[in-house]
Amino acid sequence: MNLVTIDDIHAAAKRVAGVAVRTPLLPQGWATRGELWLKPENLQQIGAFKIRGAYNAIAALDEATRARGVVAYSSGNHAQAVAYAAKQFGVHAVIFVPDTTPRVKVEATAAHGAEVVQVPTAEREPAAHALVEAKNMTLIPPYDHADVIAGQGTAGLEIAEDLPDVDVVLVPVSGGGLASGVGTAIRALCPDAKVYGVEPELAADTAESLRAGERVEWSMERRSRTIADGLRAQPSALTFAHLQVVLDGVITVGEDEIRAAVRTLATKAHLVAEPSGAVTTAAYLFHGDELPSGKTVALVSGGNLDPAVLVELLLVDPLSE
Amino acid sequence: MNLVTIDDIHAAAKRVAGVAVRTPLLPQGWATRGELWLKPENLQQIGAFKIRGAYNAIAALDEATRARGVVAYSSGNHAQAVAYAAKQFGVHAVIFVPDTTPRVKVEATAAHGAEVVQVPTAEREPAAHALVEAKNMTLIPPYDHADVIAGQGTAGLEIAEDLPDVDVVLVPVSGGGLASGVGTAIRALCPDAKVYGVEPELAADTAESLRAGERVEWSMERRSRTIADGLRAQPSALTFAHLQVVLDGVITVGEDEIRAAVRTLATKAHLVAEPSGAVTTAAYLFHGDELPSGKTVALVSGGNLDPAVLVELLLVDPLSE
Repeated sequence: MNLVTIDDIHAAAKRVAGVAVRTPLLPQGWATRGELWLKPENLQQIGAFKIRGAYNAIAALDEATRARGVVAYSSGNHAQAVAYAAKQFGVHAVIFVPDTTPRVKVEATAAHGAEVVQVPTAEREPAAHALVEAKNMTLIPPYDHADVIAGQGTAGLEIAEDLPDVDVVLVPVSGGGLASGVGTAIRALCPDAKVYGVEPELAADTAESLRAGERVEWSMERRSRTIADGLRAQPSALTFAHLQVVLDGVITVGEDEIRAAVRTLATKAHLVAEPSGAVTTAAYLFHGDELPSGKTVALVSGGNLDPAVLVELLLVDPLSE
Repeated sequence: MNLVTIDDIHAAAKRVAGVAVRTPLLPQGWATRGELWLKPENLQQIGAFKIRGAYNAIAALDEATRARGVVAYSSGNHAQAVAYAAKQFGVHAVIFVPDTTPRVKVEATAAHGAEVVQVPTAEREPAAHALVEAKNMTLIPPYDHADVIAGQGTAGLEIAEDLPDVDVVLVPVSGGGLASGVGTAIRALCPDAKVYGVEPELAADTAESLRAGERVEWSMERRSRTIADGLRAQPSALTFAHLQVVLDGVITVGEDEIRAAVRTLATKAHLVAEPSGAVTTAAYLFHGDELPSGKTVALVSGGNLDPAVLVELLLVDPLSE
């Protein structure tokens, strides 16, 4: 299996320049367990890192292929990323979402000019593939694609540029596109640094899979228990092959730790993070004994959450009661 | 009166590089009244732009003077900025704060290694001056100083670098250091752009002063009515002289508009802003008829607010009820 290389990531960086925000590393004075910087990908225009991969994948298409349009199935940040990226190229995007998707999310995706089609959850994937066949359009998957992985890797490239002597990089892992890309960049450019994936205990399929040396299936029902709704996917064969090479380990964090990290990010770092985006901060805060010391970067992957959930999380600090 | 020049601001930029975060411009997809970028100074390590001016002023001292230590009187972001900047140079900082200052703010300043002295509010300024005399230390004022103005101006320099064809820059105005510095940078580098100060209606002394052509005194009691507690100061003769030259106007915003802007920044831009930091977004959202159209930058000056206040603001959208 061909893995994404640092050259692929450099090429992606040229493509996403000016479209993805070049997020800074934010030093955190409150961090007492050793120096901590946050990489705030929640500040991307669509509120998450996903724009990097989606845009790179669409930009990498030849012009004739791209002109026929793109298709995605997602109800989350990837849907908005594909819609937003397609709009930049002026090409048609069709996004299949479950018919249970909240109206606010449907509207957010449609606002980028995409055609949003609501179908029963089980029909999402076949409907997308059928459209791709019928119209000769291109499917942009959320993580199982080399160009998507390379695009997400540009966040790692920026970390290496801004803090070449970084010791520890913490990156959320779900489908594994972000962790694969960031890990590949850090391995190549900062060979002495350690890269850790972070996932919820309640969706710890990757930790178990890496221990087993092969992908272990967790049911969607089991993975859906976590509040971190962006971390309920599982690696594909492609991303798992990357993770086996580029990760030094996986830290699993508890639900109350995730909630406390959302609160810490809001009150101390002035960032609104969704629970999925806060897991790396939770790892820093509560799992220091499992991590090497040194200069640590925690990637905050996204900030799209219901305001009511944010209020609920700010109202109660579960670990200080 | 000598005004700060763009050369002073370029010199300041060299000094603050690597200490102040070089904040990006964040494009806002939700902004429907014309293109909007946010300049998130709430992401500075002390949670506000104040680090730029305080650090530049201390860095500009000759080494022997600096070694004798610095003094400030402030209970807000300037106190933390001076404490943090002094720590970078390893010099002693004494900060006089009112004896009514919340413990959390005293501790935040002391955490940067400063000596925090609590005195009755009226004694703050004389106590600071007495110490400066007695120990031959240097007072670092929050805005009434050319090096502080030049330091704050580095935020404007970055706006001009990142968006050279900016049309409108919105900057909060209180003591006027930030507006003076940012306005000076934009005037010099983007001569076609318009620069507007923004202040609360309840502390609109600068709007009135600019109309009158001279500084008009508002009582502290009157200015203290606004929720934007960082915007209760008034320009000095020095900053007012700058504002007369560099501002195209002042927009005044209502209290409910400020509250709504805090909410919009949290829910749509994923930024936690203090009310003072949200006034420019309020101007964009609710005072478009008073502003030119075009590419607009709103400077978000700070993010230090009580978590309970943030929750209260998120719970209620005053303009949608």
